[in-house]
Formats: sequence, C-alpha cells, structure tokens
Amino acid sequence: MAHINVDKNLPGMRSLMAFSPETAAPMGELANVLLRSNEGLSMADRELIGTYVSYLNDCFYCQQSHGAIAVCYLDGNTDLVEQVKKDYAHAAITDKLKALLSIAGSVQKGGKFVTPDQITAAKELGATDSDIHDTVLIAAAFCMFNRYVDGLASNTPTDLSSYPLRAKQIAEKGYGNHIFLNKQPVPQAGEI
Amino acid sequence: MAHINVDKNLPGMRSLMAFSPETAAPMGELANVLLRSNEGLSMADRELIGTYVSYLNDCFYCQQSHGAIAVCYLDGNTDLVEQVKKDYAHAAITDKLKALLSIAGSVQKGGKFVTPDQITAAKELGATDSDIHDTVLIAAAFCMFNRYVDGLASNTPTDLSSYPLRAKQIAEKGYGNHIFLNKQPVPQAGEI
Repeated sequence: MAHINVDKNLPGMRSLMAFSPETAAPMGELANVLLRSNEGLSMADRELIGTYVSYLNDCFYCQQSHGAIAVCYLDGNTDLVEQVKKDYAHAAITDKLKALLSIAGSVQKGGKFVTPDQITAAKELGATDSDIHDTVLIAAAFCMFNRYVDGLASNTPTDLSSYPLRAKQIAEKGYGNHIFLNKQPVPQAGEI
Repeated sequence: MAHINVDKNLPGMRSLMAFSPETAAPMGELANVLLRSNEGLSMADRELIGTYVSYLNDCFYCQQSHGAIAVCYLDGNTDLVEQVKKDYAHAAITDKLKALLSIAGSVQKGGKFVTPDQITAAKELGATDSDIHDTVLIAAAFCMFNRYVDGLASNTPTDLSSYPLRAKQIAEKGYGNHIFLNKQPVPQAGEI
C-alpha cells in the first residue's frame, strides 16, 4: 500500500503524478525532452539507459515500464533489454553505448563515481559532449524517478503482461502531460 | 575541469543548464514548484531538506548554494543550516521537520529504505500526505541535481563568499527559467 493516499486505480508513477499535477507537468516535460529524441542517442538507447539504472536501483515499476518502451523501439527484442540489464558488456549493442552504460552505472552510485577514464573511453568510441550530457542526466533523472516511485511505496503491478500496452502508447505518443495528468478515464484493471 | 565543454564562466548547475536549455527549462520549473512554496512546508523547510540530501550526497556545489538560500529564509542563521546538515536531531527545528529529514535521508539511500514506521512517525507529528509527498520528491530531485552536477564534474567555486549573492537573487525571485538559460550577461568572476 502506498505511503500516501493516492488513487488505487493508477499504478506507480501515474498515481503520484495524478496526486501532484503541479510537479507532474515539469517531470513529464523532462522525460519528454530527455527520452523522446533521436538526436545523438536514439530513443531506444535512452530507454535502455533508463531501464538499466532502474534495474540497478531495484525499481521494479520503472525497469518494467521503461524496459517495455525500449522493447517497442527494438522491434520486440525483449531478450536484448534483459541482457542489457543483467550483463550489457555481452549484449548486441554498440561499444559506444556500452561505454555510456558504464558511465550511467557510475552515476547511479553517485556523481563522483564517474571517472575521466570512462569519459575518455566514451569519446574515443564516438560519444559527443551531448551524448555524455544526456547519458548523465538520464541516469540522474532515473535516480529521481526510481526514488519517487519506491520512496512513496506506490502501487506496482506485478503482472508483467500489463506493461506492454502502456509502453506502446508512450512509444507512439511520448510523455506528454496528457498522459500523466488525471484528466483521462481511469484505466481498466491490468492496464498500466 | 568539467567532463564536457561548458562555459567556464558559469558555475555548477548553471553551466549545465546553459549547455542544455531544453532540459534546463523543465528542471528549473520543477525546482520552482517544489522549492518556492510555503504550502504545508515552508520554503526554508524545503531548502533545508535539499541541502541535507546534497550534504549526504557530498555535492559541494548544491549543499553550498541551497544552504545559502536556506540561510536567506532563516534570517541569516548559518549555524542552523550547518547543524541540520551534520546533526539535525539536535537542531532547533520542529519534531515534524526532524521526522521528514529522516525520511529524506532514507530516500537518499534509495526509495525502498523509507519505512512505514518513519511515515507513521511523521504523520503523528502533523505531517500531511502532501508534506510527505513533497519531502520524498525534494529528496529524490536532489539525488538527480547532485548527480547531474558532479557526474559531469562541473566547475564548483570553492570560495564560500561567492554563494550568498546568488542565493539572495533566488530567494527574492525564484528559480525562473530566466535564471538558468543562457540569455543573461555572463556573471562577474566570483558571482555564482
């Protein structure tokens, strides 16, 4: 049960954003700017970074929901997303993305864990300043989202089949505030 | 030296926000909504929570800049801010705020460290659902801000005398985007 009185028909982040639309708006906008761009990093890359950080933070809701969004961008390749979470060094992704995931893993521990060697390695593999900026901020933002969801013990659907439908909507339409705010019909049971 | 090529005349968060105005806008708006309200928690309470979490995350820039803003709201009481960082249990603050700082300290470790007992204790001391929501989200947001600033090794002024001027501006005018975006004159050396 959530620590505060949120709508029990809404899961995870969505219940919190409905509780506090004033903070939901900039958080939704931040997610949109950071995750819905193919400039430099692809949308798949961005969701993989967020999913990996959520996995490290042991946030079930975020790793399932963003993992499902990554799967949408990766033509249904669920195995790749699982591989990135558990052992990205051996996943079928570019060396550049591996170097960026290493940086994201350090950010998850704390900003000062990022080393100049990690930055040099990423740059040598083609990462631009913007790629590195976005990686650090995506990882940092998920350290916020994960703590928000779990720090308030928000309701987390354990039925994995409920995540793909919602993921498809976000993959198609993005993280617009219309998704987060409580102006939409209450979802059916099982829908996230 | 910062890990990416940011404006060397701007310190910490401001250099990053000038580098990426697209993400600066929602981050500035989030700071404004979360920290510039006296509804439930006072602006001083909110800055103390952010300063305490920044201290726990060992983020020099954020603990100095937000500590200086808290000092503005607390009529210049620098000692109180230092006491809250290092031993809030014995600080001259309300028991309710102590209970909320305990929750913020757990969020800093990870969302799942928050216990039902901590929530019950805060509620018994008068904390509302909104107070608890805001505490968790402020703590989570500073886990993002701190990682953003230190994860990119942004330039951090070590001269403590440089923080109060900037703090006074924010205490008076808030975290409007005009503060973050790169549309203003480059500040003088020593100004943060």
